[in-house]
Amino acid sequence: MGKVVEFPRTPRTAKPLWRNELGEVLRGERLAQERILTEVAGTAGVSPQYLSEIERGRKEPSSEVLGAVTEALGLELVEVVHRVADSLRARRELERREAERRERLEREVSFTPARGSAYLLAA
Amino acid sequence: MGKVVEFPRTPRTAKPLWRNELGEVLRGERLAQERILTEVAGTAGVSPQYLSEIERGRKEPSSEVLGAVTEALGLELVEVVHRVADSLRARRELERREAERRERLEREVSFTPARGSAYLLAA
Repeated sequence: MGKVVEFPRTPRTAKPLWRNELGEVLRGERLAQERILTEVAGTAGVSPQYLSEIERGRKEPSSEVLGAVTEALGLELVEVVHRVADSLRARRELERREAERRERLEREVSFTPARGSAYLLAA
Repeated sequence: MGKVVEFPRTPRTAKPLWRNELGEVLRGERLAQERILTEVAGTAGVSPQYLSEIERGRKEPSSEVLGAVTEALGLELVEVVHRVADSLRARRELERREAERRERLEREVSFTPARGSAYLLAA
């Protein structure tokens, strides 16, 4: 006997965290400049391990450390914060579209008569 | 005998700190909503003392606390970060103009013959 496979509920997307977005922006800029961790960390006066953790969103840098890393990358704080805002906006837009897509798919599924056949949708 | 009062050197403006700008944005929003510390702190699940320190740039909130305060204010992280970026940009513009004004004043002073009279400029 076939049964309708229930479409999974749209997962509540986790709220973005400041340190994650910030880390990605800092890492992205360092890679764009083709510089290695050790060098940027040395200029900023922090250990490469610490900078690596900041870039991966594992540690919250203090405002002073953020300032030093920003300066080591030749940027101003305003530029970094602005990029984080842009990146958060892009992520929100992506999530909005993804939610819309899922909603559309769910509607389509609910319009399809199941009649004993199994439905499995690869999203 | 009169003497030329030397014009003070332009002070090196301190680099803006993330926690200061962030605190001002959070405090500004709370006041704009006419809400008291105790209430917003309670909704965010932090003590009023802690929120007060965050607002005054005395404490670095973790990304989780920032998220909770942001939510308690009915905002999204992207909005808060965007406002901080705007505020940093406005501050930089203000400092640029101030630097230009001082430079102009310094030029004017250096063009004025001193000839034994005292010059005191109120900036």
